[in-house]
Amino acid sequence: MKNPIPEKVFQKMMSTDYYSQWLGIESVEHSDGYCKIKMKIRKEMLNGFNIVHGGVTFGFADSCLAFAANSYNILSVTLDGFITYPNSGKEGDILYAEAIEKSANKKTAMYDVTVKNQDGLPIGLYRATVYRTKREVL
Amino acid sequence: MKNPIPEKVFQKMMSTDYYSQWLGIESVEHSDGYCKIKMKIRKEMLNGFNIVHGGVTFGFADSCLAFAANSYNILSVTLDGFITYPNSGKEGDILYAEAIEKSANKKTAMYDVTVKNQDGLPIGLYRATVYRTKREVL
Amino acid sequence: MKNPIPEKVFQKMMSTDYYSQWLGIESVEHSDGYCKIKMKIRKEMLNGFNIVHGGVTFGFADSCLAFAANSYNILSVTLDGFITYPNSGKEGDILYAEAIEKSANKKTAMYDVTVKNQDGLPIGLYRATVYRTKREVL
Amino acid sequence: MKNPIPEKVFQKMMSTDYYSQWLGIESVEHSDGYCKIKMKIRKEMLNGFNIVHGGVTFGFADSCLAFAANSYNILSVTLDGFITYPNSGKEGDILYAEAIEKSANKKTAMYDVTVKNQDGLPIGLYRATVYRTKREVL
Repeated sequence: MKNPIPEKVFQKMMSTDYYSQWLGIESVEHSDGYCKIKMKIRKEMLNGFNIVHGGVTFGFADSCLAFAANSYNILSVTLDGFITYPNSGKEGDILYAEAIEKSANKKTAMYDVTVKNQDGLPIGLYRATVYRTKREVL
Repeated sequence: MKNPIPEKVFQKMMSTDYYSQWLGIESVEHSDGYCKIKMKIRKEMLNGFNIVHGGVTFGFADSCLAFAANSYNILSVTLDGFITYPNSGKEGDILYAEAIEKSANKKTAMYDVTVKNQDGLPIGLYRATVYRTKREVL
Repeated sequence: MKNPIPEKVFQKMMSTDYYSQWLGIESVEHSDGYCKIKMKIRKEMLNGFNIVHGGVTFGFADSCLAFAANSYNILSVTLDGFITYPNSGKEGDILYAEAIEKSANKKTAMYDVTVKNQDGLPIGLYRATVYRTKREVL
Repeated sequence: MKNPIPEKVFQKMMSTDYYSQWLGIESVEHSDGYCKIKMKIRKEMLNGFNIVHGGVTFGFADSCLAFAANSYNILSVTLDGFITYPNSGKEGDILYAEAIEKSANKKTAMYDVTVKNQDGLPIGLYRATVYRTKREVL
């Protein structure tokens, strides 16, 4: 049977995550230490070179990370992260972000987040470390 | 006499950088390989823990980097970047970002961007590498 | 038929790479944009906490990256890199590093390098960006 | 009066840090959250392009970080780090590494380490996050 906690954590976090709401993030899949979400690139998300702003790709990846890292109902905060941009996102693209846990212990965990467009082209590759607090999300 | 190019590049880039416009970025200071800007944290920039979303801090720092890296009128694109969050930004905070060139050669350059709030408290520390194309911005 | 260039590049680079020789790096597998190598952790590679020094894990991963990035006979140099340490390496462990190309264009490329021990336990996860010059290695 | 703890921590760590001994690390200055050390680039530290191997520069910076982060006698371990190489180190160069604490709380801390040669030319810029355990070093 599917674990209902990761989905509940996502719903709870999204309900007051105004920036993720502005991004237009939609749920795709949730499980322990895992999250997949999607969003559409709108005109107001572009930079001066007419491609998606790096901050939008990063923010989308960072939200995905947060949903995955908090999926155990252990409140976790991002310590740092590294992003690269293999290709450019364009207006109208549908972006998908998928966060996968690469390692975890009691205090910290590390995640890889891949952002791809509707054709499977990688737009952003994000890797980040989180600190796991002793508080709960729900 | 002050070099007018960095300011012109900033104005040109901002005029079509819809995301930086959404952030509410305002000009503070511009020179060769340098940029200082500011913005205010609005409610729609917060995450589910009631602090500024990491993507907003990152996007603000990344715009500052772009303005500094392009200040020579050499079109430059971000290759990758690393961010850490020493403290949390709150709604209503005025954030300042300052980008300083740490090294540069013909093909690539590296920048440090510091994001602080109105009290000088560091909110984000960003370090990124850019690739310098052969095109111009203006 | 197997492309002989990646293996030739590895042999040429290793012949004057004194640090990789000191590490005791041995060849495992080579192809375009790919490299797998191994080495043994010796006592002189440990830090003050009796585990492998982060610089050794990093250096091993960085050599693997260099062999993969130069495998096309295009001389490539590391711009920057990010490393995390999921687990600790111990004296006597046999480490394997595998570098995989995640993206590449004419000027830059990005690689993921995974360092594991003899039991498949991840010891280091390294991600780096290289600049591709116009010179050849061979 | 000078705090003797950071120097004692350095001596204790160095006494069993065989890799830092191999690097030939020498003490320059120590204080709370701060460390400065030096070393000489030997032939066996070069890569196949006749410049200092990235792993050596990284390892030197990482040792400096470790001495600074443990200087409070709070055993601290590196979670992850990001390095860039502004210039190349050559055989015979004397390298200096200086670690400065940029932020710290009860559980984690972040450091900037700058590696320069004898002429003050930056060779490596390293930024890393450490986790602070509840154990002591001395």
